[in-house]
Amino acid sequence: MSDAWIIHPIGWVHNDVPGLDAHWEDVTSQIVLDEAWAPALDGLDEFSHIIVLTWLHEQPPRTPDEPHTHPQGRLDLPAVGLFATRTPRRPNPIGMTVVPLLARTGHVLTVQGLDMADGTPVLDLKPYLARGDRINQPRMADWTRQLWAEADQDHA
Amino acid sequence: MSDAWIIHPIGWVHNDVPGLDAHWEDVTSQIVLDEAWAPALDGLDEFSHIIVLTWLHEQPPRTPDEPHTHPQGRLDLPAVGLFATRTPRRPNPIGMTVVPLLARTGHVLTVQGLDMADGTPVLDLKPYLARGDRINQPRMADWTRQLWAEADQDHA
Repeated sequence: MSDAWIIHPIGWVHNDVPGLDAHWEDVTSQIVLDEAWAPALDGLDEFSHIIVLTWLHEQPPRTPDEPHTHPQGRLDLPAVGLFATRTPRRPNPIGMTVVPLLARTGHVLTVQGLDMADGTPVLDLKPYLARGDRINQPRMADWTRQLWAEADQDHA
Repeated sequence: MSDAWIIHPIGWVHNDVPGLDAHWEDVTSQIVLDEAWAPALDGLDEFSHIIVLTWLHEQPPRTPDEPHTHPQGRLDLPAVGLFATRTPRRPNPIGMTVVPLLARTGHVLTVQGLDMADGTPVLDLKPYLARGDRINQPRMADWTRQLWAEADQDHA
């Protein structure tokens, strides 16, 4: 496991959220790319949704001696392997979120509901494709339903 | 843009496909993690589908002086910005594919239809969540329909 590669940001997230807690679905963010990459966005706005890959740079690195985690830090939910969760504390802290693309102007994208704090580095953007990215009836762990039922109640 | 971070593989793809061309949907792959990460997979098999992030290490790096690309190299389709496509030649060559998880045994996962050649480094694994990852009616560029109609014909 001595292989290693270097990644660079292509841009940054801009919004009003300094930390990790927000009703993210209500947050509008700008993704501001390096201006040199502006032409590489041509045609992206023909897609309603995009996949945003980010570097969760404020997370301490995760090592194999800490393999388990409680989903969203909830001690009432079972601890499971970190790869069975979307915890930001990962061996390679790459965040991945699908969001609606509201607008593109030059090197700036406006998106809704991106669950990333202000200043988060962006690594890649991809178009969301129905064929491949959409799974109609995924089976999921029981704890996901418990999380979501309570999230809906909190937000109601 | 002087920021840079280091990523390490957590494991590797094993299959019978040496290169980039295959009927990927027919390919069964093993994802073999470093054994130290085996406990971090606990609970992942409660999900029917997983998101696999890889490092497309055999691709030459993409620079801003080459922002456009023909989807899947097809000169009859319009050239668009690289971020509007899933080309493996990206500034950070991170691959992302959603696949059914067939089995997990210790540090080894068996998946179907992963479009990654034998030996591809794996960076991260995430559970596929209906809420967030599934978009029911995404709008997409016209060229995607043209690609898929012909792919269906070729594979029929």
